[in-house]
Amino acid sequence: MSSPFALHTLLEFHDCDPALLKDAEGLRPVMLDAVRAGHGTVVAEVFHNFSPHGVSGVVVIAESHVAIHTWPENGFAAVDIFSCSSALDQVKIENCIRLGLRASRVTRRTLHRGPIEPTLPVASEENGGHP
Amino acid sequence: MSSPFALHTLLEFHDCDPALLKDAEGLRPVMLDAVRAGHGTVVAEVFHNFSPHGVSGVVVIAESHVAIHTWPENGFAAVDIFSCSSALDQVKIENCIRLGLRASRVTRRTLHRGPIEPTLPVASEENGGHP
Repeated sequence: MSSPFALHTLLEFHDCDPALLKDAEGLRPVMLDAVRAGHGTVVAEVFHNFSPHGVSGVVVIAESHVAIHTWPENGFAAVDIFSCSSALDQVKIENCIRLGLRASRVTRRTLHRGPIEPTLPVASEENGGHP
Repeated sequence: MSSPFALHTLLEFHDCDPALLKDAEGLRPVMLDAVRAGHGTVVAEVFHNFSPHGVSGVVVIAESHVAIHTWPENGFAAVDIFSCSSALDQVKIENCIRLGLRASRVTRRTLHRGPIEPTLPVASEENGGHP
């Protein structure tokens, strides 16, 4: 079995600040600051407000991408951190986003991506908060 | 248990055309045509060539996003289809990308996203090819 090419972390942030979740301009610095704190190199970014509410944001980085989709009415945001580089500090990025969104709870799943066996271990963790 | 907010399909395409995988300009129409074939509404898109090779591409759509990362030297591409709308035809998008990349094999995992139980069913399928 060959090594995975990338590590993909799927995060669900609960009980976030609803005002922030509906504000693309407010979310942009939260996500960009988090990526940079995790030593990511920003290549391009798109943040889009949907009507009546909700934001989709994607930051393409030299290491792959970080994406967010929000549901302000539920205080909920789904975030993906996809990285082909072990130098990207995914824990740091997660913690920065969690603080930025003022989330009270996070659910985390970590998957391998690449030409590997289809049945992969999926690590789930709730009430995360890395030390 | 509440319903998921989004359906997230993680695809691994194997034995693709390596020339296409290193060409951001060639990949762009493959991805955009696939999204449109699946009734997705394109909001923004970014395709980026990395040195010495490899492409990252993200299409932000009204229904969420579709992303691709490629490893031309391995004939491999990882694709995500993240959709908050059941109207998006993810099967159609997958099949279009598979044809466009000339992939001989695809591995598929489907996950729910949203404020749901952390331990979710993960559907894996190999040698996919929807009928």
